[in-house]
Amino acid sequence: MEFTDVIAGRHSIRRFRQEQVPTALLEQLIAAAVQAPTASNLQAWRFLVAVEPSLVHKLDLFSPGLSGNPPVIIAVCSDLEEVSRRGSKHSLEYGCMMDAAMAAENLMLKAVELGLGTCAIKSYHEQSVRRLLKLPDTLRLELLISVGWPEGEPRAPQRKPMEQVLFFNEWEETK
Amino acid sequence: MEFTDVIAGRHSIRRFRQEQVPTALLEQLIAAAVQAPTASNLQAWRFLVAVEPSLVHKLDLFSPGLSGNPPVIIAVCSDLEEVSRRGSKHSLEYGCMMDAAMAAENLMLKAVELGLGTCAIKSYHEQSVRRLLKLPDTLRLELLISVGWPEGEPRAPQRKPMEQVLFFNEWEETK
Repeated sequence: MEFTDVIAGRHSIRRFRQEQVPTALLEQLIAAAVQAPTASNLQAWRFLVAVEPSLVHKLDLFSPGLSGNPPVIIAVCSDLEEVSRRGSKHSLEYGCMMDAAMAAENLMLKAVELGLGTCAIKSYHEQSVRRLLKLPDTLRLELLISVGWPEGEPRAPQRKPMEQVLFFNEWEETK
Repeated sequence: MEFTDVIAGRHSIRRFRQEQVPTALLEQLIAAAVQAPTASNLQAWRFLVAVEPSLVHKLDLFSPGLSGNPPVIIAVCSDLEEVSRRGSKHSLEYGCMMDAAMAAENLMLKAVELGLGTCAIKSYHEQSVRRLLKLPDTLRLELLISVGWPEGEPRAPQRKPMEQVLFFNEWEETK
């Protein structure tokens, strides 16, 4: 699929068909995710892919940010043990958080190519999600991504005009 | 360009040809960036594109993380005034930081399609960069991205084997 179509076709999906996603496709999502940049080549991201229906259902219950009963929920985590052992002073505070976000974006773009829909969220009950996924203290939960076959047409909120977000050489007040 | 080739073709570029990048291409990078997800539809990112050679040179001097004398440096910022006015409780702490990282990834992928190279960095002297770009206190500097025509072949560090980063349903210790 053309890159331009992928990037324009990504929208947050909040309604899913009740149909499983083949494991091979989920593996392709993660293979795309890990091609994102990773500061100091840390590769500290860890991807927990919840597909077992009762687990997904429980995660969903504790995640008010998720909508549409997704059949798959991916938890993007950072392995803080690896970060503190090999990272720079920036890594722990935001380096691996940014790595996680960039990997998540690759994953969500790849999903478009595969016909899948996604939505990244930060609104979940942290301790419940951690317990359900059996996350050790060394894993930081960065975000959750719902994955599934989209149902219906997504909302596509308009972007701000370029002159409100793009500036050359120095900041100018636009308001 | 095929999405698969774009995503596989993105590598951090640390050597650039000494040649300007047309404004129209830089605008295409930002147009791709703003298609990334943005939590609560905040769109709080602001992109400062430094192209004026003496400014780029000064930014470069204060950014040990940058290499290869890039002709363009893009500062990805978050407008904290907008975030505090319209954002959720998560937005300030990490929502808009993740938005910035996802937008940066879109930008860097678009660059591949245009034949450009990029490198995202967090290693810079914050106060000097802020002063050079005339950033007000309300703008948080999230990261810098060098942009230019790549020279030579980039390094392409190997990714970890999938079994070290991908887990189904719950965390398993692999070490």
